[in-house]
Amino acid sequence: MRDITIFSPATVSNVVCGFDCLGFSIAEPFDKLTIRKTDEQGIRIINNDDFGLPADPQMNVAGVAVLEMLRVAGIDQGLEITSTKSIKPGSGIGSSAASSCGAVVGVNELLGLGFSKRELVEFAMRGEMLASGARHADNAAPCIYGGFVLVRSAEPLDVVELSCPPLWVTVIHPQIEIKTAEARAILPVDVPLRSAVRQWSNLGAFVAALSSGDLDLLSRSMEDVIVEPVRKGLIPHFDEVMKAGRTAGAIGGGISGSGPSMFLLAENENTAVAIGQAIRNEYAVTGIDFNTYVSEIKRGGVSIS
Amino acid sequence: MRDITIFSPATVSNVVCGFDCLGFSIAEPFDKLTIRKTDEQGIRIINNDDFGLPADPQMNVAGVAVLEMLRVAGIDQGLEITSTKSIKPGSGIGSSAASSCGAVVGVNELLGLGFSKRELVEFAMRGEMLASGARHADNAAPCIYGGFVLVRSAEPLDVVELSCPPLWVTVIHPQIEIKTAEARAILPVDVPLRSAVRQWSNLGAFVAALSSGDLDLLSRSMEDVIVEPVRKGLIPHFDEVMKAGRTAGAIGGGISGSGPSMFLLAENENTAVAIGQAIRNEYAVTGIDFNTYVSEIKRGGVSIS
Repeated sequence: MRDITIFSPATVSNVVCGFDCLGFSIAEPFDKLTIRKTDEQGIRIINNDDFGLPADPQMNVAGVAVLEMLRVAGIDQGLEITSTKSIKPGSGIGSSAASSCGAVVGVNELLGLGFSKRELVEFAMRGEMLASGARHADNAAPCIYGGFVLVRSAEPLDVVELSCPPLWVTVIHPQIEIKTAEARAILPVDVPLRSAVRQWSNLGAFVAALSSGDLDLLSRSMEDVIVEPVRKGLIPHFDEVMKAGRTAGAIGGGISGSGPSMFLLAENENTAVAIGQAIRNEYAVTGIDFNTYVSEIKRGGVSIS
Repeated sequence: MRDITIFSPATVSNVVCGFDCLGFSIAEPFDKLTIRKTDEQGIRIINNDDFGLPADPQMNVAGVAVLEMLRVAGIDQGLEITSTKSIKPGSGIGSSAASSCGAVVGVNELLGLGFSKRELVEFAMRGEMLASGARHADNAAPCIYGGFVLVRSAEPLDVVELSCPPLWVTVIHPQIEIKTAEARAILPVDVPLRSAVRQWSNLGAFVAALSSGDLDLLSRSMEDVIVEPVRKGLIPHFDEVMKAGRTAGAIGGGISGSGPSMFLLAENENTAVAIGQAIRNEYAVTGIDFNTYVSEIKRGGVSIS
């Protein structure tokens, strides 16, 4: 095998009451990566889009993840990685994780390296560190494992695959920029214990509801009393989008990652489509450009064509 | 039917990372209540033990719970409640909840009132308010529902029954007094967001592990970085008990309620018995009197003889 093509999904992290630990992958949008063995040494990155991402592998999230992987494997194989991204950088739906995860899964398969999913997430976290300055797995773990994933701990990495019923997701991505650093800076250092208790009671109920398929409980537990109240101010029309989505039948929703994207869960495709229509109507009044996506929660993570 | 006899189990609340929301019921120790219809009006309470609990129904946790229940039902039936307690008040294993829950379940059955479990917990919370000054369901909900229970919200009451594998529990109750008020007063008002995230990541993993039966994950998630560090100072020899229990095969453990009781989970009876022996040996050096209990997690809560 000389080359391989990979599809790497977008992911929603910081799922409502699960700030910094809970995420899931969605079927659309996704990035496409083609990885080819070359006879020259080193890694060559070709960005087949106009996002202006760096081609220097040391400065590229896929590059640093693959370089670390090859170093650990003790392999010096030349590779050409052609990236065709649909997930816009800075959208808040795991663009950097899609690149680094797609690359490490692809190289693992192409070179038969045999690394586990957990190890692949570790390599991809190199890319996340480069992208955001934080060594987190909130997007990388759901991107590689697929479905709903809880990262119990990043150091050491402890990934928990959660059972969940079939669910659909509607995402809206307003074309504004939120710097991850700014979204981090406005977080409180300390939070009231009372609020923390409410948050973890909700998260416990959320995980239980995913497991039992109790969508009413899932809905009641989709409440974030800690992060959303401070971050929603960075996202124009956040409350109106959530309200329109709930009115159209959403189970619940919130900020995706650190924004600006927002997501809403639905129990079937028709409802997710109706939610998309409702929030497009709602967002049109802002005058801000936006994209919407309707997608099933993707099981299985990064896939090989 | 003129009378009914009820067995009401002890309960462990504030289960490690699930402070103020997670609890379970245990088969032993338990209280016995006999409730009898009388021709005189009002409620008469007979305390068939030497714990010095009030006989005035307005000052008794079972009394206030039953009075509220009769008021809501619009019934004026005279009742005699004979309480034979094995769960020592102030032990931290839900003594007050056992009294109030046993009483409301018994009266509900005796008079055919048809209240739901959820409504019965609400009535029992009157007793908890009297006992501790806080309207909480952390013990009452597991006492009535049985098994592992998560209280997502106390107001409005939202009780989530958690699926869980067969588990055994070893409890040690040092005969010292910890005032609930003192145990509350030393809690921090604010906690670092970083610690809160760690706590809720653990709780999410704990609930997932109960559901999947992954005991290794259950063990890793039994970590409390917020409450245990401040409260364990009230319980002599806490760290030594936890260490001895883990060495003897415990999955994990922590403070029961607000102490002084401590508990350890085990995957089978033999291990729970071995843990009991290990922590008895460990605690003997303190010179403090103590009791230990070994019990399966009780499914089904309060039972009718």
